[in-house]
Amino acid sequence: MFIPTLREVPADAEAISHKLMLRAGLIRQLGAGIYSKLPLAERVMRKIERVVREEMERIGAQEFRLPLLHPAEPWKESGRWDAVDETLFRLRDRKQTDMALAMTAEEIFTTIARDGLRSYRQLPQIWYQIGAKFRDEARPKSGVLRGREFTMKDSYSFDADAAGLDVSFQKHAEAYRRIFSRCGVESIEVEASSGAMGGSESVEFMAASDAGEDWIVTCPGCGYAANLEKATSEPSAASDPADSATIEKFPTPGVRTIEDLARFQGGAPAERQIKTLVYRVDDALQLFLLRGDHELNEVKLAEITGSTRLRPAGAEECREALGALPGSLGAVGVANLSVFADLALRGRRELTTGANQDGFHLRHVDVSRDLAHANFVDLRNAREGEGCTRCGKPLELRKTIEIGHIFKLGLRYSEAMGARVLTAEGKETPIVMGSYGIGVERIMAAAIEAHHDANGIVWPRSIAPFDVVISPVKATDPEQREKSEQLYAALAEAGLDVLLDDRDERPGVKFKDADLIGVPFRIVPGPRALAKGCVELAERATGEAREIALGDVLGELRRALGR
Amino acid sequence: MFIPTLREVPADAEAISHKLMLRAGLIRQLGAGIYSKLPLAERVMRKIERVVREEMERIGAQEFRLPLLHPAEPWKESGRWDAVDETLFRLRDRKQTDMALAMTAEEIFTTIARDGLRSYRQLPQIWYQIGAKFRDEARPKSGVLRGREFTMKDSYSFDADAAGLDVSFQKHAEAYRRIFSRCGVESIEVEASSGAMGGSESVEFMAASDAGEDWIVTCPGCGYAANLEKATSEPSAASDPADSATIEKFPTPGVRTIEDLARFQGGAPAERQIKTLVYRVDDALQLFLLRGDHELNEVKLAEITGSTRLRPAGAEECREALGALPGSLGAVGVANLSVFADLALRGRRELTTGANQDGFHLRHVDVSRDLAHANFVDLRNAREGEGCTRCGKPLELRKTIEIGHIFKLGLRYSEAMGARVLTAEGKETPIVMGSYGIGVERIMAAAIEAHHDANGIVWPRSIAPFDVVISPVKATDPEQREKSEQLYAALAEAGLDVLLDDRDERPGVKFKDADLIGVPFRIVPGPRALAKGCVELAERATGEAREIALGDVLGELRRALGR
Repeated sequence: MFIPTLREVPADAEAISHKLMLRAGLIRQLGAGIYSKLPLAERVMRKIERVVREEMERIGAQEFRLPLLHPAEPWKESGRWDAVDETLFRLRDRKQTDMALAMTAEEIFTTIARDGLRSYRQLPQIWYQIGAKFRDEARPKSGVLRGREFTMKDSYSFDADAAGLDVSFQKHAEAYRRIFSRCGVESIEVEASSGAMGGSESVEFMAASDAGEDWIVTCPGCGYAANLEKATSEPSAASDPADSATIEKFPTPGVRTIEDLARFQGGAPAERQIKTLVYRVDDALQLFLLRGDHELNEVKLAEITGSTRLRPAGAEECREALGALPGSLGAVGVANLSVFADLALRGRRELTTGANQDGFHLRHVDVSRDLAHANFVDLRNAREGEGCTRCGKPLELRKTIEIGHIFKLGLRYSEAMGARVLTAEGKETPIVMGSYGIGVERIMAAAIEAHHDANGIVWPRSIAPFDVVISPVKATDPEQREKSEQLYAALAEAGLDVLLDDRDERPGVKFKDADLIGVPFRIVPGPRALAKGCVELAERATGEAREIALGDVLGELRRALGR
Repeated sequence: MFIPTLREVPADAEAISHKLMLRAGLIRQLGAGIYSKLPLAERVMRKIERVVREEMERIGAQEFRLPLLHPAEPWKESGRWDAVDETLFRLRDRKQTDMALAMTAEEIFTTIARDGLRSYRQLPQIWYQIGAKFRDEARPKSGVLRGREFTMKDSYSFDADAAGLDVSFQKHAEAYRRIFSRCGVESIEVEASSGAMGGSESVEFMAASDAGEDWIVTCPGCGYAANLEKATSEPSAASDPADSATIEKFPTPGVRTIEDLARFQGGAPAERQIKTLVYRVDDALQLFLLRGDHELNEVKLAEITGSTRLRPAGAEECREALGALPGSLGAVGVANLSVFADLALRGRRELTTGANQDGFHLRHVDVSRDLAHANFVDLRNAREGEGCTRCGKPLELRKTIEIGHIFKLGLRYSEAMGARVLTAEGKETPIVMGSYGIGVERIMAAAIEAHHDANGIVWPRSIAPFDVVISPVKATDPEQREKSEQLYAALAEAGLDVLLDDRDERPGVKFKDADLIGVPFRIVPGPRALAKGCVELAERATGEAREIALGDVLGELRRALGR
């Protein structure tokens, strides 16, 4: 058995799951965001995949195996060939035909549905596969948590109407809850943005972890939970004067930032400033206004504008359009560009903003009076402690790993690609679709993030690479060897996954490795115990060890493992 | 269940397995040489993969999961980045880094061995994976038989010496025999060329089939068997005069080909001519001589020259080097270029060849006298009916599908990439490697090629997508429906793979589909049989049908399926 455990790990491994997967010999890096899974990891992944298959079969899903190499054509039909950025790996074959590597498979399943489904009577269908996916992440990190190649269960539902989609969506939510629970990973369901996938509604399943890169907002009062990309909140209250003074321009030499203006004599604290951001959206510049201490949420920006091609405008673009450089920009009196203002600015008085003249600002700004041309929308990131929009209680913020994501796609793909069925009335209608993903490596990593200690991994029993390891104190001792091999054969015969550590190493080394790789149970056939017809049985999770008669080992393990 | 059977198949589907896989709803084409596997095919492939896993585990192999996206670096280290042609899919990531799609994984497994194996005591190791592979075939055809993306079990052995490699190689041969036999596919083992893989020895496992693209040569006398690329044979005997006349140049206006010269007054029959072929090998021209009626074998050419960059020389290149155009070329008196002559030419007299002067040939050529500067090697394709080089019996030629291939790589990769272990004497030694492949789709297709009839597929029981289909005569009849569902539940509960055809279709349609998709057993709960407490049980392979008591169905099926 090839289990190359390590004492030291590369300095760039930060996430605990990344460190432990390297140290326990589960993975090796091949390139940026690309990892080889060694035999221990493969065993864990196959156990996870088995759980996934069982739960997908339970909701009536059928397994497919789709190509990973996609012709560009279906991606062009759906519009994603142009809409998705460099995250989609693209290549050309020997005939210079455009191709892509599977990122998800909406397009391919939709072509199969278009050709194979004719009537509402064939619906609903749930189709899935488990296999490699590719994303050329700009910043791969945290080992398998944000890799460029990973294993995903992706499924797709096909229904005749929205009510059918609701059922398929709920079935998936239930299957996902069972999958995560069976794999020993606690999941939090949050409202999420649909992003590049399109569609109307989506829910993410998150595992709380410091190694995560996704912030979620939760309300301990009413249970509201959302990805920060999507979360809304009540801003902290502002106390403005009842009346507005006349708007006034004043010189602010050297002021470039919100902080500069807060410190400037005659300036204003951040929460009394208007932050003016200029973006190029498709081909036009647009203005986005926020309270000075608030942060723009670019995902909300993309949803509001409906555009996937947006970027902050450059200094020269700003000067050309508004007559000033960033630092002195504002929206008062701007008639030629669209202006969006965050809801937290609505009705505010006595604010300060840029004057669209370098080195000048405006004060006494009254939003209702001076920015009446703005569209008021939710533009900003929610913050810890702000009020829940549903119940008013203070919101909490935490870091999580996305382990599953389910989408109501609706007609996004079926309309673009012409996937239709005949209704009972003989009318053609586009198929109503959903899509659903679970990351296999992410479950593995999230399980480690949630279950480890100073000595290594503590695998949930359901996905442990082995159920039990037999570690004779001295592998070269004939009696220990014989008893170990007998026990190995008996446990394997009974269907348990057993590892026999027959290396000629000190017990300390073997126990350390067993702890590191996290096998739930360890059996030690030592000389003293064997003399009494016993072995030591230790549990990895609790560290508890006790002597047990050789004849009782199988029964005890079966009971403990629930088999 | 999504089983989109078809009446008609695209005209370009020629191989019977290709047609039946389309008609039975197993696959759909996504692009040239790229196929989606629908649920029936996925079920078959998972059964094949299960057999493969069991037999690989039996020889002590450990399962890995390696990336499909390879950085170019290890391919450059091994030399294959340059040596392999366009068959290797290449791409660049967002940082313009060169990458390749997995064609095989020698390089990646070798890097893991290099980093993880230190001592001869860790050997032998057999590592494997089952997953997608990519080859940008110039002419993808025959459905999944020559696809550009396919599923392969690839394994790699690591031994301390050549004797160890022999053991690993034999273990694989035995595992492969068991795998093919268990999957119902008869395999023929043949000597093969190692080609782009490198290494010293290789054996292919072939399934006889008209859909195949590989010709093999077999000897019914001694059992000799080889791929045509590699096969040797005794040429038919030639009766030459005992003495040679003086060599003589004569005019042959208009003669361009072997056939021209055979018809030409004063010419010679093909078997008395020397065919002169000029190739550019790496950067130099070389001459290859064959008997006029023999065919050059380019694989042998590559092995003899040790080059992977060779192509026929152009007319102008020939004129520059030899002074004449193709049609009048010869090797007599050629001192500036390497000359290789096929063994069948050795010792021949009274032959005719080109004179290296346009429109002229030489006659009375005595090979020993006039072509003494040639190197004699095996250059030609063996032919049906020629003598076996071992026993002299006439050879047979047949078309086959390659379903497995095992290679002794030796030190090819470990030396190039520096994968070494310490011997018992503490000396560094390169690891001795083997590599081994099985095509999963190819087994599926070969099984269909071998097992079908006019009505469709007749799956071997071990890999059938379902064990049994229940086809009530009238699915809407309450009693038939109830009994069908009871039977379905009982058989499924017992672990059989059951399909219930509850479509409201005529029995003829349902039986036709059941025959087409090739389920080994069919149960028909019809009104007359049910009245007697019976159902009809029919076997797909024999067409035999009989009534059987409801209570006996499970036992009978278990017996027949050996479960």
